[in-house]
Amino acid sequence: MSWKLSLLTDLAKEVFSAIHPLLGTARSREVLGLGFGGDKTRFIDAVSESAALQYLKNKGFSCIFIGEECGVKEIGFFPKFYLILDGVDGTTNATRGIGFASASIAMSPTSWLRDIEAAVVIDLYNGGIYSAEKGEGAKFNGQPIKTSSIKTLEEAVLSIDISRSPGSIEKVAPLVSKVRGVRALGSASLEICHVASGLLDAYVDIRGKLRMVDFAAGMLIVREAGGVFLQPNGEDIPNAQLNELKGFSVVASANRDIFDKIRLLISPNAPS
Amino acid sequence: MSWKLSLLTDLAKEVFSAIHPLLGTARSREVLGLGFGGDKTRFIDAVSESAALQYLKNKGFSCIFIGEECGVKEIGFFPKFYLILDGVDGTTNATRGIGFASASIAMSPTSWLRDIEAAVVIDLYNGGIYSAEKGEGAKFNGQPIKTSSIKTLEEAVLSIDISRSPGSIEKVAPLVSKVRGVRALGSASLEICHVASGLLDAYVDIRGKLRMVDFAAGMLIVREAGGVFLQPNGEDIPNAQLNELKGFSVVASANRDIFDKIRLLISPNAPS
Repeated sequence: MSWKLSLLTDLAKEVFSAIHPLLGTARSREVLGLGFGGDKTRFIDAVSESAALQYLKNKGFSCIFIGEECGVKEIGFFPKFYLILDGVDGTTNATRGIGFASASIAMSPTSWLRDIEAAVVIDLYNGGIYSAEKGEGAKFNGQPIKTSSIKTLEEAVLSIDISRSPGSIEKVAPLVSKVRGVRALGSASLEICHVASGLLDAYVDIRGKLRMVDFAAGMLIVREAGGVFLQPNGEDIPNAQLNELKGFSVVASANRDIFDKIRLLISPNAPS
Repeated sequence: MSWKLSLLTDLAKEVFSAIHPLLGTARSREVLGLGFGGDKTRFIDAVSESAALQYLKNKGFSCIFIGEECGVKEIGFFPKFYLILDGVDGTTNATRGIGFASASIAMSPTSWLRDIEAAVVIDLYNGGIYSAEKGEGAKFNGQPIKTSSIKTLEEAVLSIDISRSPGSIEKVAPLVSKVRGVRALGSASLEICHVASGLLDAYVDIRGKLRMVDFAAGMLIVREAGGVFLQPNGEDIPNAQLNELKGFSVVASANRDIFDKIRLLISPNAPS
């Protein structure tokens, strides 16, 4: 394992150790304020980010750290890379005890999304680790993974996020009625990793709300697993600074065939 | 623990032992034929039901067994009760390895749904056991559980099944746009138990497709936990023979307030 993946994996395990005992507890839900991204910071989010920051400081990894809660922080005196972290992706699930949440970490030598070259997503319930390095493929717990080979919607199981977005349900209705199964699991980065490992055939979020911190790691992992990660209209995800707060619409899919079939059913009204 | 819950719990653990090693394996998906309920019987479904039948025979529990795959079977010579079992609820999740599937078992002294007096649902991934006995409350892993006290849709997280039902998505659209979060987790009985234990605030399935084997156990568990389990129009679930194959529409909710708010948003078009 490269030093990059080794660092991200150790960091993910550190976050897991801090968070796992808090899952589903009353304490985890306490609201501490508003985070950098504009959402409420709950106790569990704060603990996760603190654990990550503390680990980096203790180990002497100087970097620019971008967290969902704390925003941009410079650690050490000679930052050599950028880290973007969502300490708890699926905070609602994690605070309630619904068994699907993750932490997501990506590393880039620059401040740009497109330059991300290593990523890890850890399942906060069972500790399973998805990872990828640019050009080196994707792995789950160290074993290579690839996306599914399903190419028809009639066989496909898709995860679609329609929470808190009046109007988006109508846009995905034609898609919903075509596919074999619809899921909404509540943690974007873990759902994208489920596409990477072939458990799901696609993840669809056309709400224009997904932030970079939610998908920066998953994007590399699903692409390295042979999947597609694009905007719903088929265009690439625009390059952006890692600290940008813009929301995106995205489709992660197992292959191009599935992507094209999804695109045809949602693109007429989908925001780009 | 009463002998009834003791029997159901042991049976659930037996099913768990047989099924857990198969989760997400290629073998689990093999299609063996069509079951009693009309769905494909996959290897994992068959193994689950066989494990349950074998256990009952070995222990000398004479009963009328109603299984999703095998239909009605008389075990032993002096049947004293009825057992209704869904060996794998969430077969798609279980065969793919998506971490949310259950086995569901209910016991009745008669052949009627309304007489069910003990029930167990086991999480096939982590072995967690939801149980209830009529008039005795509901438990998770032996500890009493109750439904959430959330009474507004704006705070509520609902699980809504919209798979394979063109038209149902339009009917739930007004509801979807009101609530805090929407999930679709893929195992009705486990989702209903999540309502029982307060992790979810409601489970909604208005497709008219849910069979008794899917909810017989969950219905008792969520009611014993203080929740509501009714048809979407507010009428009670009609009494029925346990081997009836009719599909139902159901809403399980944490309390009557949440139920009434859901009903108002879906009832105009919802099938009863």
